[in-house]
Amino acid sequence: MAGKTDIAPDVSINACAYRRVLEIISSKWIVLVMHVLEDGCKWYGEIARRIEGVSQKMLTQTLRQLERDGLVSRRGHPTIPPAVDYALTPLGESLMEVVRGFRDWTRVYYPQVERAREEYDRRMEAGAL
Amino acid sequence: MAGKTDIAPDVSINACAYRRVLEIISSKWIVLVMHVLEDGCKWYGEIARRIEGVSQKMLTQTLRQLERDGLVSRRGHPTIPPAVDYALTPLGESLMEVVRGFRDWTRVYYPQVERAREEYDRRMEAGAL
Repeated sequence: MAGKTDIAPDVSINACAYRRVLEIISSKWIVLVMHVLEDGCKWYGEIARRIEGVSQKMLTQTLRQLERDGLVSRRGHPTIPPAVDYALTPLGESLMEVVRGFRDWTRVYYPQVERAREEYDRRMEAGAL
Repeated sequence: MAGKTDIAPDVSINACAYRRVLEIISSKWIVLVMHVLEDGCKWYGEIARRIEGVSQKMLTQTLRQLERDGLVSRRGHPTIPPAVDYALTPLGESLMEVVRGFRDWTRVYYPQVERAREEYDRRMEAGAL
C-alpha cells in the first residue's frame, strides 16, 4: 500500500512534463542547434554553416521553437543589413547539461546494450532462455 | 570549414545510438520498472504491485526487454512454486542516473519552459515579435 501511494502519484504528475521534455530533446535539429550554441553566442549565418543539411526554413523554425521554450535568446542588431544572433539562456544551458549527460552515456555505454542484445538473442535461439 | 568537420561527423556517428537510447527512456513502463528497481532487487509480484495499471503481459514484456538490453538481470529460484526476482545491472544503474538527471530537470525547470511559451505567445499576439 505504501509502495502504491508513494510511486504512482509521483509518476502520474510528472509523466506529461517528462514526455514534453523528451519531445524537445528528441528533435535532431534542436539538439544540433543547442550543441552549436554550447560554446557561446552565434550569428544566424554561423549556425547555418555549422549544421550540415539544414534548410533555412527548418533552421528558422527550430530557433523560433527554442526561443519560445525559453531555451535560446535572440538579439537583433540595428546594422545594415540587420543582423541577429542567438545564445543559450541559463535555462537552455541547464538542459544542455542533461543532454550532454545523455550523449555521454550513449557514447560510452550504448555498445554494451548492443552486445547484451546479441548475447540474449543467441541464448534465446539456443533455447537457453 | 573547421566547424563543419568537427560538428557534423560527431553528430552523424552518434545519431542512431542517441535515437535508440531515447526509445528506451521514452517507454513509460521501462522507466517505471527502473524506478521501482532503483532501491534494490524485487520479486516479480512486488514490481507488479508497485506499478498501478500494468497488465501481466505488459510487465513480462517490459522486463524481458530490459533483460535483453542488459539493463536488468533476472534470477530464478528453484522454490515451489518457482520464484523470479529482478535487479538493475550496473549498466542499468548508470542509465538510471541519466534518467534521474532528466526527471530532476523536468521537475525543477519544466514550469519555466511553460511560462516562457505563454509569454512568447502573448508577445506574438500583441505583435511584439
